[in-house]
Amino acid sequence: MSKAKKTAVTPTREENFPEWYQQVIKASDMAENSPVRGCMVIKPWGYGIWEAIQRDLDRRIKETGHENCYFPLFIPLSFLEKEAAHVEGFAKEMAVVTHHRLVAEDGKLVPSGKLEEPLVVRPTSETIIGDAFARWIQSYRDLPMLVNQWANVVRWEMRPRIFLRTAEFLWQEGHTAHATAEEAMDETLKMLEVYRVMAEEVLAMPVIVGEKPAHERFPGADKTYSIEAMMQDGKALQAGTSHFLGQHFSKAQNIRYQTAQGGEEFCYTTSWGVSTRLIGGVIMSHADDNGLRVPPRIAPKQIVFVPITRADGDEALIEDFLAPIVKDLSAQSFGGERLRVHVDRRPLAPPEKRWEWVKKGAPIICEVGPRDVAGGSVAMIRRDGELKGQITPKDELVSRAAAILEDIQKTLFTQAATALKERTVTVRTLDDFLAVFADDTTFGRKFVRARWCGDSDTLAKLDEYSITIRNVPFDQDGEAGTCVLSGRPATQEVIFAKSY
Amino acid sequence: MSKAKKTAVTPTREENFPEWYQQVIKASDMAENSPVRGCMVIKPWGYGIWEAIQRDLDRRIKETGHENCYFPLFIPLSFLEKEAAHVEGFAKEMAVVTHHRLVAEDGKLVPSGKLEEPLVVRPTSETIIGDAFARWIQSYRDLPMLVNQWANVVRWEMRPRIFLRTAEFLWQEGHTAHATAEEAMDETLKMLEVYRVMAEEVLAMPVIVGEKPAHERFPGADKTYSIEAMMQDGKALQAGTSHFLGQHFSKAQNIRYQTAQGGEEFCYTTSWGVSTRLIGGVIMSHADDNGLRVPPRIAPKQIVFVPITRADGDEALIEDFLAPIVKDLSAQSFGGERLRVHVDRRPLAPPEKRWEWVKKGAPIICEVGPRDVAGGSVAMIRRDGELKGQITPKDELVSRAAAILEDIQKTLFTQAATALKERTVTVRTLDDFLAVFADDTTFGRKFVRARWCGDSDTLAKLDEYSITIRNVPFDQDGEAGTCVLSGRPATQEVIFAKSY
Repeated sequence: MSKAKKTAVTPTREENFPEWYQQVIKASDMAENSPVRGCMVIKPWGYGIWEAIQRDLDRRIKETGHENCYFPLFIPLSFLEKEAAHVEGFAKEMAVVTHHRLVAEDGKLVPSGKLEEPLVVRPTSETIIGDAFARWIQSYRDLPMLVNQWANVVRWEMRPRIFLRTAEFLWQEGHTAHATAEEAMDETLKMLEVYRVMAEEVLAMPVIVGEKPAHERFPGADKTYSIEAMMQDGKALQAGTSHFLGQHFSKAQNIRYQTAQGGEEFCYTTSWGVSTRLIGGVIMSHADDNGLRVPPRIAPKQIVFVPITRADGDEALIEDFLAPIVKDLSAQSFGGERLRVHVDRRPLAPPEKRWEWVKKGAPIICEVGPRDVAGGSVAMIRRDGELKGQITPKDELVSRAAAILEDIQKTLFTQAATALKERTVTVRTLDDFLAVFADDTTFGRKFVRARWCGDSDTLAKLDEYSITIRNVPFDQDGEAGTCVLSGRPATQEVIFAKSY
Repeated sequence: MSKAKKTAVTPTREENFPEWYQQVIKASDMAENSPVRGCMVIKPWGYGIWEAIQRDLDRRIKETGHENCYFPLFIPLSFLEKEAAHVEGFAKEMAVVTHHRLVAEDGKLVPSGKLEEPLVVRPTSETIIGDAFARWIQSYRDLPMLVNQWANVVRWEMRPRIFLRTAEFLWQEGHTAHATAEEAMDETLKMLEVYRVMAEEVLAMPVIVGEKPAHERFPGADKTYSIEAMMQDGKALQAGTSHFLGQHFSKAQNIRYQTAQGGEEFCYTTSWGVSTRLIGGVIMSHADDNGLRVPPRIAPKQIVFVPITRADGDEALIEDFLAPIVKDLSAQSFGGERLRVHVDRRPLAPPEKRWEWVKKGAPIICEVGPRDVAGGSVAMIRRDGELKGQITPKDELVSRAAAILEDIQKTLFTQAATALKERTVTVRTLDDFLAVFADDTTFGRKFVRARWCGDSDTLAKLDEYSITIRNVPFDQDGEAGTCVLSGRPATQEVIFAKSY
């Protein structure tokens, strides 16, 4: 009987995946639950990852012609009342502001100054942005209207989970208006593709791109599309959505334009968003039993040096050795940005610092002691490999740093893509379907790809398993067959899975 | 009698400064009031300016050792109750969340799901961040703790004014904790200096740096420092503040650390912030009767080309001419960032487009027609000069673009600095003091520099004039004299002014 390998995070993924997730967040010092129910505090390492995601995505959003704006945090109730389906979908989980003042009574603060009309804290901004669109759009010349905002939103979650489902979260929400349904649909799919590329190339998180079934649409949408990623426990994470809203919101909010011919038409609108939930996806895609592994493209620090000082004078020796290396590395680019290099000079024991960076998942960690200086090398740890320093000549480190980061980025993507492929099984019968889902273990759980007739009544039999349809992948074989649930004729294949 | 010169903005500054301010915002399409009382919609041109300010300031904040975090939007009432002075200062103007659900009743939405403890929407985050500091800080090794957050905050303003005083606004708030009072004071002044440099070098807005008098301190602060700018109507704008909080918040919130000697001490904390109010300052510092003039460092588009097409084929001709120019310009840097170059291809009449960019205040506007192409030149308008195109050879434009932008940046600063100098008068007697303030016209109004004894009771006689002490400038002559208000001995000079 071999002794279990010691890991930096307890429990391991296999032992208890949900608890492992919480412990990785703690070990990497990314974020924590706040004393405000359901709200999180995002700490520097977590926020640095979000900033990197923002920089990348913001560039893509601007390159596709959108401009950033900022709309009010508060939405009057009357705005929500205009779109019935939207109301049904969101009314249950909103923070409601009813007063604008506090007064002290017996040393306690009591709400005062009641508002004539209560305000909700935005759960999403279709209604308040639609109101602006109705004012801004007069003629076909004003179209397409392409805006985006980076903001905080609030949905009162009953079972909050850090990064994945929090009462307050950060996101971007794009909102556009178009003259025709076709243009709006093009936009919807274009931004879905932007999300796919960002998820796969930047977060190293492979996704399945497709349309959500009708019963999973955004409240008020004609069609909703998503990217779905597989977490290491075989559950799906909806990582981004793009909605074709048709004329629902434009009719509810009177967003009209004068055509070139002088007629008047309602616009077609879209909306699309990704949030800090992506960080939860990064963790559950890439972290291991020793902590986080951050894809280099979004690592707040990509190369971290840990000086190993034992005697007086070591510090100066190592600083002199590192200075030109840090300078050369910092002048290089990776993923369109300058390399982010850091020397950890804190007065802590070197092994403690090294493990901290392992747990944080810095892609490259280099230990440098007097012997390394003498040999002109560093002891390099790649976070995607064995956690053992490899003696690496400094010139090699400097000349190959960007290539190594690119290689780590690829490794993380390939590992996740391989898992997604191997753990997605195609089945044709209900027996096979249930047999696959019988394995509900962390590493045994799978995505099932199967034909479905499209009748949501057939899903009742999945309730007891907490299985849902994630999306209808764009990639279809188009062959006729039978629905795995109802046995009726069906052509489309869908992805069934447990999910976050 | 000469005919009045026609201006793009009506009224002019001289005719009605407050209304001119609103009209500049409208003409430049920066922002607008929203249907939510006191909240604004920041449109792309205004938000682009904010993004440029953010990029610059964020870099300075990080270079001085701070890390970005994100803390909850909501603050429990119990947190506020801990710091009495803080409560007094803010309790009067907060948005209070009392419910977490809405239910439909007769087609109307009604608040439901009452919270056990109401939450306020953060007016500032000392209390919620202090709570985190109390958890994060254990020992002297954890100090200094240096964090910053970019966020929205809400203060229920009774007389909102776009950018200057809105219920919701965007800002950054830095929060730090230190082992000693001296270190905390160093931090307070260091960040004040960061604000000064940013205001003067980036916003081209000269400021007076000094300490606020005791009665104008931030609620709960030991000392508050500010940068104060002079608007074109001679009123002061407090453009940024930095607070030395002493041990008020650390004692109220139990932020303690173990010293190197094993003892236990309360930390000394600071906080400092600037907001979207700065954009109001930029407008009132630099805009003229033809609209905004954006300092090049923060212009979302710095060089705008307006093609002048009259005949078929002109468009292709001009595009071919512009392509290499745009490419060469876009590869250049200014203020540490790539030049932001834009070709306005919208199907509108060229003069209409030119005037739009004049009103938006793009620093350089170049019109290009077939004749310009033939001559290898453009008709360049500098927004800081006569609004008439100067024929400029394309090679000159390309080689001198960054220098011209730098020159425009300097011109705007120099104009504002000259006004600040000329319109700040030093007086020694109450008669002279009142004589200066007797001129309450847009271009006649002044800052008064005079000695003050420090007794806030003496200020009662200024109430009828709406004059306040802006700050006690760091730059002092140190000579003994008499208080301009009380006649008592006084050494310190302060700035008196009307203000926003």
